[in-house]
Amino acid sequence: MSIWPEEKVFKDPVHKYIYVQEPVIWDLINTREFQRLRRIRQLGTSYLTFHGAEHSRFSHSLGVYEIARKIISQFERNRFEDWPGEERLLCLCAALLHDIGHGPFSHSIETVFGEHHESWSCRIIQGDTEVNRVLRGVDPTFPDRVAAVICKTYPREIVVSLVSSQLDADRMDYLLRDAYCTGVNYGMFDLERILRVIRPYRGQIVVKESGMHAVEDYLTSRYQMYWQVYFHPVTRSSEIVLRNIFARAKSLYESGHAFLFMPESLRRLFDGTLDTEHYLQLDEALAQAAFELWTNDKDPILSDLCRRFLHRKLFKYATPSKLDDALLDRLRESIRREGYDPEYYMQVDFPKDLSYDVYRSGRNAHRKPIYLLKRDGELLEISEASDIVRSISGTTSGKHRIYVPERMLEPGNPYVTAETEEWLRGE
Amino acid sequence: MSIWPEEKVFKDPVHKYIYVQEPVIWDLINTREFQRLRRIRQLGTSYLTFHGAEHSRFSHSLGVYEIARKIISQFERNRFEDWPGEERLLCLCAALLHDIGHGPFSHSIETVFGEHHESWSCRIIQGDTEVNRVLRGVDPTFPDRVAAVICKTYPREIVVSLVSSQLDADRMDYLLRDAYCTGVNYGMFDLERILRVIRPYRGQIVVKESGMHAVEDYLTSRYQMYWQVYFHPVTRSSEIVLRNIFARAKSLYESGHAFLFMPESLRRLFDGTLDTEHYLQLDEALAQAAFELWTNDKDPILSDLCRRFLHRKLFKYATPSKLDDALLDRLRESIRREGYDPEYYMQVDFPKDLSYDVYRSGRNAHRKPIYLLKRDGELLEISEASDIVRSISGTTSGKHRIYVPERMLEPGNPYVTAETEEWLRGE
Amino acid sequence: MSIWPEEKVFKDPVHKYIYVQEPVIWDLINTREFQRLRRIRQLGTSYLTFHGAEHSRFSHSLGVYEIARKIISQFERNRFEDWPGEERLLCLCAALLHDIGHGPFSHSIETVFGEHHESWSCRIIQGDTEVNRVLRGVDPTFPDRVAAVICKTYPREIVVSLVSSQLDADRMDYLLRDAYCTGVNYGMFDLERILRVIRPYRGQIVVKESGMHAVEDYLTSRYQMYWQVYFHPVTRSSEIVLRNIFARAKSLYESGHAFLFMPESLRRLFDGTLDTEHYLQLDEALAQAAFELWTNDKDPILSDLCRRFLHRKLFKYATPSKLDDALLDRLRESIRREGYDPEYYMQVDFPKDLSYDVYRSGRNAHRKPIYLLKRDGELLEISEASDIVRSISGTTSGKHRIYVPERMLEPGNPYVTAETEEWLRGE
Amino acid sequence: MSIWPEEKVFKDPVHKYIYVQEPVIWDLINTREFQRLRRIRQLGTSYLTFHGAEHSRFSHSLGVYEIARKIISQFERNRFEDWPGEERLLCLCAALLHDIGHGPFSHSIETVFGEHHESWSCRIIQGDTEVNRVLRGVDPTFPDRVAAVICKTYPREIVVSLVSSQLDADRMDYLLRDAYCTGVNYGMFDLERILRVIRPYRGQIVVKESGMHAVEDYLTSRYQMYWQVYFHPVTRSSEIVLRNIFARAKSLYESGHAFLFMPESLRRLFDGTLDTEHYLQLDEALAQAAFELWTNDKDPILSDLCRRFLHRKLFKYATPSKLDDALLDRLRESIRREGYDPEYYMQVDFPKDLSYDVYRSGRNAHRKPIYLLKRDGELLEISEASDIVRSISGTTSGKHRIYVPERMLEPGNPYVTAETEEWLRGE
Repeated sequence: MSIWPEEKVFKDPVHKYIYVQEPVIWDLINTREFQRLRRIRQLGTSYLTFHGAEHSRFSHSLGVYEIARKIISQFERNRFEDWPGEERLLCLCAALLHDIGHGPFSHSIETVFGEHHESWSCRIIQGDTEVNRVLRGVDPTFPDRVAAVICKTYPREIVVSLVSSQLDADRMDYLLRDAYCTGVNYGMFDLERILRVIRPYRGQIVVKESGMHAVEDYLTSRYQMYWQVYFHPVTRSSEIVLRNIFARAKSLYESGHAFLFMPESLRRLFDGTLDTEHYLQLDEALAQAAFELWTNDKDPILSDLCRRFLHRKLFKYATPSKLDDALLDRLRESIRREGYDPEYYMQVDFPKDLSYDVYRSGRNAHRKPIYLLKRDGELLEISEASDIVRSISGTTSGKHRIYVPERMLEPGNPYVTAETEEWLRGE
Repeated sequence: MSIWPEEKVFKDPVHKYIYVQEPVIWDLINTREFQRLRRIRQLGTSYLTFHGAEHSRFSHSLGVYEIARKIISQFERNRFEDWPGEERLLCLCAALLHDIGHGPFSHSIETVFGEHHESWSCRIIQGDTEVNRVLRGVDPTFPDRVAAVICKTYPREIVVSLVSSQLDADRMDYLLRDAYCTGVNYGMFDLERILRVIRPYRGQIVVKESGMHAVEDYLTSRYQMYWQVYFHPVTRSSEIVLRNIFARAKSLYESGHAFLFMPESLRRLFDGTLDTEHYLQLDEALAQAAFELWTNDKDPILSDLCRRFLHRKLFKYATPSKLDDALLDRLRESIRREGYDPEYYMQVDFPKDLSYDVYRSGRNAHRKPIYLLKRDGELLEISEASDIVRSISGTTSGKHRIYVPERMLEPGNPYVTAETEEWLRGE
Repeated sequence: MSIWPEEKVFKDPVHKYIYVQEPVIWDLINTREFQRLRRIRQLGTSYLTFHGAEHSRFSHSLGVYEIARKIISQFERNRFEDWPGEERLLCLCAALLHDIGHGPFSHSIETVFGEHHESWSCRIIQGDTEVNRVLRGVDPTFPDRVAAVICKTYPREIVVSLVSSQLDADRMDYLLRDAYCTGVNYGMFDLERILRVIRPYRGQIVVKESGMHAVEDYLTSRYQMYWQVYFHPVTRSSEIVLRNIFARAKSLYESGHAFLFMPESLRRLFDGTLDTEHYLQLDEALAQAAFELWTNDKDPILSDLCRRFLHRKLFKYATPSKLDDALLDRLRESIRREGYDPEYYMQVDFPKDLSYDVYRSGRNAHRKPIYLLKRDGELLEISEASDIVRSISGTTSGKHRIYVPERMLEPGNPYVTAETEEWLRGE
Repeated sequence: MSIWPEEKVFKDPVHKYIYVQEPVIWDLINTREFQRLRRIRQLGTSYLTFHGAEHSRFSHSLGVYEIARKIISQFERNRFEDWPGEERLLCLCAALLHDIGHGPFSHSIETVFGEHHESWSCRIIQGDTEVNRVLRGVDPTFPDRVAAVICKTYPREIVVSLVSSQLDADRMDYLLRDAYCTGVNYGMFDLERILRVIRPYRGQIVVKESGMHAVEDYLTSRYQMYWQVYFHPVTRSSEIVLRNIFARAKSLYESGHAFLFMPESLRRLFDGTLDTEHYLQLDEALAQAAFELWTNDKDPILSDLCRRFLHRKLFKYATPSKLDDALLDRLRESIRREGYDPEYYMQVDFPKDLSYDVYRSGRNAHRKPIYLLKRDGELLEISEASDIVRSISGTTSGKHRIYVPERMLEPGNPYVTAETEEWLRGE
């Protein structure tokens, strides 16, 4: 045995080091289910817009664990009474595993096939997997408790809120990491400062009042990231192409098409018969390999869309001043006459459809607001105190965009009428 | 036309922005061959050691282009007479395309199959490709000139040395980018300072004498990166597993094995009949997808090695004090008795076999030394002036390592004799 | 002559290098008036709150010059027609010299003595000084033109706005530099991004519409800096003590007090007979040396205030819920009974009295708003387009604070009534 | 009492936050002796070369404290047995106070007057001071123990080595801080990495063998800082001018000169009768104020040197190939004929005279070498294991430089013979 029985570390570009002190955490990281997250990108297709966005959910998951560890250490160091110390390991495991159920390009797959990564997370944690075996080693009920935290059904709300709330370890890591990797460094905020102002209080995590500006800084960073990165129109375009590949392949599959390549896991995705074992084989390497082999498919739509995705010949967009069914129909007709099937080659998009929001003050279950703790012990919802937070709360007012093949937007396209052309040009 | 006819930019985490001013560069980036570099990692299997090392050759290639652009701008701004201004575009294109021929996990594939990425670069540049069409648009001889720069046969040595020498745009970008992505920031050096001290002089790029410390800093950063990142034993282990996957698959292929998955491009790799079209289909997505599907192969060696690679159950290593054929034979025998085929489960490794070197003062063609330009116009090879450079020059004295499955190194393994065990324990 | 006739550089922590390409700039930096700025801190007494805030106006002035140089280079590189290229050197000189008239702890001295650094800048530029001699070397009218730009009377508004406007080189450098030196890095913004979105247009500098988020980021950084650094209550306290030192010394001087130390330059400040020569001798070294020698003055108020300032025994503050003349009178009486003269030991402070504002959309001469340039050539004031900017515009709503010696706020002070104590405790 | 009874923090640009957990540390920081360090620059006259080098010994002292705190926390967290836990507070106080005895521009004053900052540190700690009162509050013998650590006579060597050795908190902070403030970021090293590899072992602090590269990185950073910053010839020039001001003033004082300004503390410095009270009044504000007032002194040498220092008209240097008494005499004669007194206007300088060294492996008391701890428990002096460390160890071979007024080096100076001119030109 070594005479250095120290903690293990991972070198991390965002947090410098990630410290692993419990064997359970170490073992979870070494399961095949967790290693698989290396083959799933954190930001889906964003790398087609920001070439640095090549980081995986593996890196992000380690980062969420590390931030949770830091938060809990701070709570312990300050001996805050409202912190349930016995939940430490549960929090760390849930933080590490919260994304374990993500599949390749999750947003697109979830839209087309109705799968939900959160429910897959629970199936992986509770099913016959290496992760489950490691967790059971702690205690037979431990897997269920970890799953409960991730699915937000765990009774102690403070444990859930550490992993998913408006100010959780997940959001903190992804903002920092996405900013670091894309180079969009106005998405950076001062993590150490946030750690200094949060504390457990009556079953939830709150911010001491004097820390209001720190939260404002965090939320304006989030605002910048949403507008610069997450809502970027080129990323939206790549997601549309991707979604249409899956939709087309599903439709072909249902009509008995002979694919050049159809591994069991994809077949089951199309069939709706995915089990955990095959779900785990679905990763972005497999998806991309399929797209590559399908570039030679005899279905011209599937092969064209695959080439568009791989060679980054994405759709272009127009921002018409307002939507109008008659004009949309006329555009659809132009697209058809140009030789494209509008079902796969035209998409109206509203950024507000996105599942993101910068900050919402409403009180529904999933989006608990951020509270300031006043010196007299009262709580104050942050947007009541901060003008700047109020200004970025609520629904975002992005514009409608219409995505179509580039050719449709070239001036003088014979199939596009002058009226449509003017309309597409927008303001 | 827009009223903002400005240069285009890419947001880059290392250089902040990458500026594209020529349409040719823009068009090259948009070719399918260049986009393919997004699916090939810059650091091969290093992401299994440093989880941040997930960046692609696409990002790196843009970075090399940007550094070349900055160097040339500095030469132009200072109006250095020894700089052949008419070679600007050639340099930029060669910088951008210098890695266009890289395949998936190049080091391993090159070792097993004898392919060389440099010759593939030239075939892609000179063959029937989108890249070739863009280059021919400049001038019919332009593809050949770009290829000559990359293959180091271009007559003007200064052009070659900008892209490949001891102090070239390629090395500068990869050091910075690998340091940034892994988080090993002691690999950082001050690029702007290097740019200030280099200049063209009599057909080569030299360093003004007062810039010696800047080059020392760059070379000690390189030294740190080699020891911390490039030579890392875990990375070596993953490369060994990967090489053995390819070697086993090739051997099975030659014996007529029925693979669960064997796309045309892999078949041609095994056959030795790769053409450009199929070479371009070989990327890391395809390789990883094959490994995944092969985890169910009926050949136990192939499926085991694939699982080891994907689930990161790599080989462990011992560092015996010295190598000895008899002891190696005995270890080989133990491995066999444990049930492993030593051909695929045992590997002796010397870091000095690597194609890297921190700095070598020798004067062979590929490794031109770095010269200091004295005030009297004389040149001085840097290791003659700098103790610190001399100390890190030449062959590195890494230790022999023996890689085997973990089980072989567990104390008390019944198949390993006490003598072998002691020998493996090393000093 | 050297064979390296290159530009000169200064190593700078914020901009990496500061490039000097014109001999005039070099000569201006080497004047005694400019060197004197090394002895005047950029942030006055803020170093008593943020120990890193020790940087001088010398460093800042070089930084403003460098940002102006970068802005102009970008305008030239893009060949923007609305940029009057012939004003380059004038802009650079005005940027470099805009703070040349600052005295020690300017805000305090200006409040007590009614001197204005801007008018001193012009006197130094136009008087019998080394700076004037260098500028006259360009052209006999050049000093007057530089002075006009600094005093905002130069007819070409675009030249003025580069040096002083809501988005000028001055603000950009001080935000970055103050953030860097204090360590308050949420005050950082992405300078290169701002440079990419501004341009000259019809006699002013505007922001292209797609750059709106970049400006939002810059303004929220400014907002953070104001609340975290510039408005910090401890800094306010130190300014109050400092102001009272000057006020007391002036009052003593007028009554014929015999000072232990009274150099000619201070005497003239008190007399109101300062000329340029003596103004230039006034720096923070001299002021601090006077304070030190005055700690032994026989006037107990002067010596106590000097000790408080040098030994950082500043006033403490209370934040009463509302101001009330009767309560203020009662507090004044308590202070008197405790043995302090309320004129020098009590101060009501409103942060909004400060000369800073984050952003104001009004259209008065000194605070031109920031305009977005739409694609159709129209201009739009930014707070009309941005919720976030609107939320931080206008007057800030800081609270009243009352600064008094620490003893007055200790619980149970016999001279403070229970009612006053409760009032001072605030909410 | 507040419901947030947390640790206090200082915002620091290098360490982000400095955490104060003991009231003693807080009270020490608030003494007048410690606050005085704000008026003494960390890098003496280096700000005349690197304008960012304006940071004080106050900032540095907080940083040394913080690094010591981090080292000790790591020792405690890992429960290293060789760490004497009861010495924690002593180490922290010694780290904080190690520079408390520094005077203005210490190197120059020490050279001219023979004062030593270390002995002043002990006098301040043990004399009738606020610092002494705070320390006595811990225990009557505590001041003596703190003094013993600083003067390296404390019996437990490990305590001393934390504050002063080749790998101590002092050096670590100044390298990072000087690099940060000057912008010479190749002086940065990875502090967190160093913290991970050091540990207490048999009464000293050693480095575990696998941490060798981390120490190499730290020492090469040091090497870069020495050559780029600490040995910079312009800084040397400013120190020479400064030293000559003090030497001239002392000589004038001894001959009964009537100074325009001569405060008691300076008088006692010249007299050799400094006591603690007056030593504490000597700071850089006072020194600079004296220089300013002396620019009008009737002694032409004193006034000229003061102007040279304040207006940064420093001496220039030549680097003759070798020193030669006859040639030096001839130069001295030329200087005299030009109208300068060579005693104050000519200086031969060898960088190796400096008290710095990058690393020395010798085993004298003050410069204990750095030891690697091998896995078998043996210690190995690092330069035996590392080529790179060996290459930068030992005496540095800087060149002789001769500093004289600029005019002496102008080509064609009638008082300088052609032979001398050629000699001065060097290689």
